[in-house]
Amino acid sequence: MTDEITAHLRLPGGPVDLAAIETDAAPGFDGKKADGQAALAAMAGELSDLQERLWAERTAGSERRVLLVLQGMDTSGKGGVLRHTIGLVDPQGVRITSFKAPTDEERAHDFLWRIEKGLPSAGYVGVFDRSHYEDVLIARVRELADRPEIERRYGAINDFEARLADEGFSIIKCMLHISADEQKVRLAERLANPEKHWKYNPGDLDERAHWPAYRDAYETALEHTNTDVAPWHVVPADKKWFRNLAVGQLLLETLRGLDLQWPKADFDVAAETARLDEEAPVQ
Amino acid sequence: MTDEITAHLRLPGGPVDLAAIETDAAPGFDGKKADGQAALAAMAGELSDLQERLWAERTAGSERRVLLVLQGMDTSGKGGVLRHTIGLVDPQGVRITSFKAPTDEERAHDFLWRIEKGLPSAGYVGVFDRSHYEDVLIARVRELADRPEIERRYGAINDFEARLADEGFSIIKCMLHISADEQKVRLAERLANPEKHWKYNPGDLDERAHWPAYRDAYETALEHTNTDVAPWHVVPADKKWFRNLAVGQLLLETLRGLDLQWPKADFDVAAETARLDEEAPVQ
Repeated sequence: MTDEITAHLRLPGGPVDLAAIETDAAPGFDGKKADGQAALAAMAGELSDLQERLWAERTAGSERRVLLVLQGMDTSGKGGVLRHTIGLVDPQGVRITSFKAPTDEERAHDFLWRIEKGLPSAGYVGVFDRSHYEDVLIARVRELADRPEIERRYGAINDFEARLADEGFSIIKCMLHISADEQKVRLAERLANPEKHWKYNPGDLDERAHWPAYRDAYETALEHTNTDVAPWHVVPADKKWFRNLAVGQLLLETLRGLDLQWPKADFDVAAETARLDEEAPVQ
Repeated sequence: MTDEITAHLRLPGGPVDLAAIETDAAPGFDGKKADGQAALAAMAGELSDLQERLWAERTAGSERRVLLVLQGMDTSGKGGVLRHTIGLVDPQGVRITSFKAPTDEERAHDFLWRIEKGLPSAGYVGVFDRSHYEDVLIARVRELADRPEIERRYGAINDFEARLADEGFSIIKCMLHISADEQKVRLAERLANPEKHWKYNPGDLDERAHWPAYRDAYETALEHTNTDVAPWHVVPADKKWFRNLAVGQLLLETLRGLDLQWPKADFDVAAETARLDEEAPVQ
């Protein structure tokens, strides 16, 4: 059973101490890797059914949609979650937006301008691979904005997410939590395997040197933006299989919580059936 | 084996007679439904590997990308292909664009304006769920543009697709070919099942009444736009499993044909490895 997992992921209110949250645990799941992979695969049918209902609702005018925000240090596995967990959902109903370093045009606007453009339409499961949180993480660590602007952004983010919730968004925010040692192992793997060289960037090591500053920036961001309408989840991510399973469970419970119903016909079913039965021969 | 399938799908040059192409066949595949489903599932690993290579190439400056165009009458299974075939590919590397009736803004531009905006970036497998072909299909049948404009569009499409091919697009065009009888069965299923009512639109029957005119419009469009750089494939689609398998095979062979290589490192691997080994302790 996987229903016990999510209670362990929800970040409590108050100050955040990431060092106190284990990275290599599998909280709430009583099984090994193969069990976890099987449990994730077993979610596919229900995820698929619920996503189709969400999509169908849209045709009846519903504004509801899901936004899954994935944050984490380099190599924490955002791409793995997209491939293995989001890959279970019908791609017609998924919209993935990846946020890289902002372009000149993006920099000439407020930090939320490009985020707005990447939001999912009604009926979609939207996924942010990095997000507006970069603007209080790398922007804080690398001083890409001055401190008053960084401080302003926490409140702006909360207002923004509250507005989205009012519009019909269900927001799931996940920090994929790995240890510095695990990141070192993963970077070494990328360097050792020519098929993974394209994933490696010398800048990754420059960022890694700022690990403590990033941890502080995460702790501050998580504390300031851990709201009831858009709560944070810290997902232990040293075990890739648990990371994928945990995000799947969060998505599943969010969709379940929407109590999604198939829309009722907005036409006369009997009349249409008769029309089809009685049509003139075609061809 | 599925390698024999695609030769049967490629539309030969010259006039097109859709009535002469079977809709319920499984050409080139010597197996039943369960075999076909297993063969499709067996493609997942290679599709995934090739798509990742295409994606990786992009980081080394490649402009290559794939564009799969799905056309077909209502209920022919464009959504099924997206779910079952495209669903096998890592969603990070997929961009699906669905074209509905054009908006007022889209109508105020040339018909290719919105198509340009929906094109996949380098590295992506782009899929068009309907396409610019609607502008010579429903537009012709329903006289949404005058005849000289429709005639102009065939050449404009060929020029457009030739330009895309020059830019690095591999274009796969599929017409999902169902019989009028099979469409009737599928519409009746939608009417009989309340969970499928949302997929039904009374307008579907209005379009169905124009079946012969649509067949003519398809034949004309296929004949006029069946070029070497963007050839048409007619996919027998009464058997859903064969339809999914056949499109999967077309995608697989297209990706294989690109001879995709992992990009070489653009950094000094030994130096980076030493940097990682010798770094100061983190945390």
